[in-house]
Amino acid sequence: MKVSDTVLAGPDGDVRIGDEHPFVVIGERINPTGRSRLTEEITRGDMTTVRADALAQVAAGARVLDVNAGVPGFDEAEMLSAVVRAVHDVVGVPLCVDSSTPEALEAAIPLARGKVLINSVTAEDRSLDRILPLAKRFGSAVIGMANDEEGISMDPAVRLAAARKVVEAALDHGIAREDVIIDPLAMPIGAAAGAAAGAATTMFETIRLIRDDLGVNVSCGASNISFGMPDRRGIDAGFLAMAIHAGMNAAIANPLHRPVRKAVLAADLLLGRDAFGAAWIADHRAQHSTGD
Amino acid sequence: MKVSDTVLAGPDGDVRIGDEHPFVVIGERINPTGRSRLTEEITRGDMTTVRADALAQVAAGARVLDVNAGVPGFDEAEMLSAVVRAVHDVVGVPLCVDSSTPEALEAAIPLARGKVLINSVTAEDRSLDRILPLAKRFGSAVIGMANDEEGISMDPAVRLAAARKVVEAALDHGIAREDVIIDPLAMPIGAAAGAAAGAATTMFETIRLIRDDLGVNVSCGASNISFGMPDRRGIDAGFLAMAIHAGMNAAIANPLHRPVRKAVLAADLLLGRDAFGAAWIADHRAQHSTGD
Repeated sequence: MKVSDTVLAGPDGDVRIGDEHPFVVIGERINPTGRSRLTEEITRGDMTTVRADALAQVAAGARVLDVNAGVPGFDEAEMLSAVVRAVHDVVGVPLCVDSSTPEALEAAIPLARGKVLINSVTAEDRSLDRILPLAKRFGSAVIGMANDEEGISMDPAVRLAAARKVVEAALDHGIAREDVIIDPLAMPIGAAAGAAAGAATTMFETIRLIRDDLGVNVSCGASNISFGMPDRRGIDAGFLAMAIHAGMNAAIANPLHRPVRKAVLAADLLLGRDAFGAAWIADHRAQHSTGD
Repeated sequence: MKVSDTVLAGPDGDVRIGDEHPFVVIGERINPTGRSRLTEEITRGDMTTVRADALAQVAAGARVLDVNAGVPGFDEAEMLSAVVRAVHDVVGVPLCVDSSTPEALEAAIPLARGKVLINSVTAEDRSLDRILPLAKRFGSAVIGMANDEEGISMDPAVRLAAARKVVEAALDHGIAREDVIIDPLAMPIGAAAGAAAGAATTMFETIRLIRDDLGVNVSCGASNISFGMPDRRGIDAGFLAMAIHAGMNAAIANPLHRPVRKAVLAADLLLGRDAFGAAWIADHRAQHSTGD
């Protein structure tokens, strides 16, 4: 099935995700998980690091920013709303509003400018029933995780079935097919059965199935793949190049990691999505001029 | 069609090229093209740099070494023979004997230990008629270039037809199918029609066709792809990851280029060809201990 473009919108313009466009990095940094300083700041309403991370990621090539403000014991709706406002104080890219709390999404999405991406809905009935009406109400696109009540399968056909359930439920809610992006679930290679086997190959196969059978775009949390391994950025870079070749057109990742940024730019160049190599050469010049 | 393993042999053991094995880097450095010091040395019989390059490439992960001694105006048969002897003085990996001069191949191949790879034959009749009998006579495997008298096409189907001609001619000479490796011809992306479009995507599509239709392994001269571009190694690394995902199991490349080495190791890890991540972790430790 042909994969139609997913189009997000922000004050600075549209972002198109699709086969004919440069790969879209969704900057992952604005997330308190594992970041004690950011956590401490946002829980007292200090948006200094949030703003700095927004600017740095966009400067490094992020075309969309993921925003997450989940800290146990704090009012996520209030904090996520404050983070959305702070990010829009400094950058005009579309946002990927990231929460497992529907109330936080409901509070923060209407504060975001343009058309956002909701991260995420799963194939579980209670998730579909709660999140999809928000996507319809706010005209948002949505990331659907390829897992359901049974958890995460290592069988690509089972993940495809979960993804199909999300797409069909979205269509039932009046959401356009191209406004659903499926996350096939990048798991740590170190944790996969057989050690270092299966997590990536399952991803590549699932990407192909989702594209062919459902005709929707694919994204994932790319840095999960290297969790627990040394030299994580080298693994992330190789994974991204291979997943892009398999048909993935966006990922939540850290563009400040140079190997990740280079892998994405190289993939665009090699796939003919960087006319005249302009982006590759501009990146080279920017690095060269700063001595990096 | 299932791709059978290509097996080379050297004093230190066999090297298997195939889907179930780690990617095979064929070290490209022992080649006078563009290397004035190496050229000057080998034309006066000094093998200092040849030996150093052999040792360094094997230490960096090359499992096979390409050996080329073509310098216009000098006796290539004599020089290639001397290079083969010098390389075997210091390393025991199988060789990829590289010459466009049949007489040089004929002189040098019997000096190489074990079972070698001949680089290369084309689909041109005069090449097939001259090189394939050498492969049969010496029990060698052979790299077949996917071009014929008409030159190099940008149409994957035309390259496939040239590759098929090589495979069928090899079979007619009594050479086993698995002893033919096809080079689909990596061309500079900068030189492709439309600038930076076509050279890599043509490669990826041709790799798939050759594997599916002919059931043979694929290799290429990987660094050609980035010719004329800045940050060549980053392009080579992304290209290798994508081409490996497309089904390429060996390449002539420079393992001393760290991004290239990392891309290959990451691909092996992600495809489940590096049990327990042993090679990835060993590389990390080796780099860490030397402060690289």
